[in-house]
Amino acid sequence: MKCPGFRFSAARAGIKERGALDLGLIASDRPASAAAVFTQNRVQAAPVRVSRAALERTGGVAQALIVNSGNANACTGARGMRDARRMVEGAARALELPADRVQVASTGVIGVPLPIEAIEARLAPMAAELDADGFAAFAEAILTTDRGPKIASRSVDFGGKPLTLLGCTKGAGMIAPNMATTLTFIVTDAALPQATLAEATRAAADATYNSITIDGDTSTNDTLLVLAGGAAGNDPLAPGLGEAFAPALEALCEELARALMADGEGVSHVVDVRVRGARSEADARRIAQSIARSSLVKTAIAGGDPNWGRVICAAGNAGVDLDPDALELFIGEVPLVRAGVAVADDGADARAEAVMKRPAYTITLDLHAGGEAAFALACDLSHEYVTINADYRT
Amino acid sequence: MKCPGFRFSAARAGIKERGALDLGLIASDRPASAAAVFTQNRVQAAPVRVSRAALERTGGVAQALIVNSGNANACTGARGMRDARRMVEGAARALELPADRVQVASTGVIGVPLPIEAIEARLAPMAAELDADGFAAFAEAILTTDRGPKIASRSVDFGGKPLTLLGCTKGAGMIAPNMATTLTFIVTDAALPQATLAEATRAAADATYNSITIDGDTSTNDTLLVLAGGAAGNDPLAPGLGEAFAPALEALCEELARALMADGEGVSHVVDVRVRGARSEADARRIAQSIARSSLVKTAIAGGDPNWGRVICAAGNAGVDLDPDALELFIGEVPLVRAGVAVADDGADARAEAVMKRPAYTITLDLHAGGEAAFALACDLSHEYVTINADYRT
Repeated sequence: MKCPGFRFSAARAGIKERGALDLGLIASDRPASAAAVFTQNRVQAAPVRVSRAALERTGGVAQALIVNSGNANACTGARGMRDARRMVEGAARALELPADRVQVASTGVIGVPLPIEAIEARLAPMAAELDADGFAAFAEAILTTDRGPKIASRSVDFGGKPLTLLGCTKGAGMIAPNMATTLTFIVTDAALPQATLAEATRAAADATYNSITIDGDTSTNDTLLVLAGGAAGNDPLAPGLGEAFAPALEALCEELARALMADGEGVSHVVDVRVRGARSEADARRIAQSIARSSLVKTAIAGGDPNWGRVICAAGNAGVDLDPDALELFIGEVPLVRAGVAVADDGADARAEAVMKRPAYTITLDLHAGGEAAFALACDLSHEYVTINADYRT
Repeated sequence: MKCPGFRFSAARAGIKERGALDLGLIASDRPASAAAVFTQNRVQAAPVRVSRAALERTGGVAQALIVNSGNANACTGARGMRDARRMVEGAARALELPADRVQVASTGVIGVPLPIEAIEARLAPMAAELDADGFAAFAEAILTTDRGPKIASRSVDFGGKPLTLLGCTKGAGMIAPNMATTLTFIVTDAALPQATLAEATRAAADATYNSITIDGDTSTNDTLLVLAGGAAGNDPLAPGLGEAFAPALEALCEELARALMADGEGVSHVVDVRVRGARSEADARRIAQSIARSSLVKTAIAGGDPNWGRVICAAGNAGVDLDPDALELFIGEVPLVRAGVAVADDGADARAEAVMKRPAYTITLDLHAGGEAAFALACDLSHEYVTINADYRT
């Protein structure tokens, strides 16, 4: 679990209880192309604002990332902005880098000031302890209510050279107290122009992270960051590089996103909602996301109830024109609706119920309006979700 | 509980179990101005399509409504359209009216054909039993999983003449099995031009029904219909009539909408989400609805947890530009956030918790960006919601 050119470390700053790892550091041996997708929420945490601004100033170059868990540094006003900058400047000093080349991220409780001195005190030791084998500890340090670290890697051959991609994610916080965050960090030794990396990152996020939904809310801190250091030594201007790299990045993101959703507390079913036969991919995606976000669909998933009326109703709520009399719906391979009405098969419901007992299955809606398709991931809205979120005391 | 010029009846057609009332009829002594707001869902039940087309053909004139509960006649294909027309034609024959003057509505399970012969057999007796005192039975006949009928009335003086408004609603179905429906029927003896009635109806729906949310889904059958028969004998072209009528209609709709939400199964708190200081009313409404629809806010309401980070995060997800550092937030009268950060008051959380034990309270978010305001109603996302929706078996 290495990525040539990158080193990692983790530490305890006492932000989380019980002495858990709560600080992580990534450093690249050289300036890396950097691309990020940040939360679309209009209330953005200080680290998101600081990191976005740094990428704008450098035109997409970064060489390090400092991240803390346990505290989101969100809704913390001017002090929060100052603290985020102090994290960046402290890490830059420890690594002897310009501050603009250091990205910063935070996840955890909202509205509480960071214990910034405790963090600063750990930065020099963390820089000294950077290790090519340190990714597992780094992946643990970013967790909040996750059940465990979620790591994935890919290797892709390009012109005889192996390119490595290594990433980790955290996210159970989406359904956990205090509206925590999806953080995803990916490093690669590929040498990539910034524009190529940015395009691949945006496409991978749209096809994966933006298509998963646990509760439909996006947090103040969501960040997906990709650093391409170039240690592989490939020609960054070789034709076909983007075409080789982008699918590997998307596959890596999909694996991480699925792991993130399955790790959600209270989640016992992960459902691929596939919409096909759409006039455009955007239409298909909007409908798939509307289905995946519907509370009524999600409680039906929790209860194992093949209540297809809810799926069609949620599809109709997506704001996309569709012909109700053309719809075809399957749960797993079991057809339940054809030409907009229930199939004449008394056994279909029982077979669909059996499918819905599986931990993972598909719901497929065919619009019969065109040739485009998209998917979204859905999960249960369960008693555990309510318990975790309602019974929490600030 | 009368409205001059209107008569009502109810009957049992065996659609609902245990012999409950499941058919309702409203008839006006004369052709009435009619205005309706139908579901925005792209999958619309047959009765919605038939009723909308009739209003288009007549230019907004109707004289009767036939409604059934227990079966939504949605996702029923060509047969469903035929059955909806048969309901209209049967009622028109029984009342000796042109079919275009009869509106039709349905609510209940999706995807099951109507028992149309049983309905047709009841239409002549229902016409014979029409009664000026029949509104309570009518209001009962439209219910599905509601705990009981929800009726409201208003009287408004216009130029010395009392104008009466009488309405009923049903809606617990929104959070009940099989994605049932909000139906609201209002009759008035006011004489109103169709355009005046349509404008008042649209405004009242926007300010009330469109601002309540139980689970964010709109059904295939949602209908709000207002019939203005004119028995009051007022001058329909008198200046100021619309200005007198519209507030009464909005107040009536608000009372019905609040009753509907409080009646939702699993609902133990109804919360006014008030957004003020917005640049436009539309901005304020989008933010209020985003807060009211957030699963994390709704579980916080269920748990009585003054988790203001979730409210601000949901506001940020509304897609409206806002200044996080200007936000001010109250639960009840307790200030929790000022200038975007937590107030320095250790007792605030405990006082907010006490507010959140009440069955009804307010959450107020001030954007400090302008002078416009709007509200939305929110309720719990509770264990009961999950139980009702997950454990139901089709």
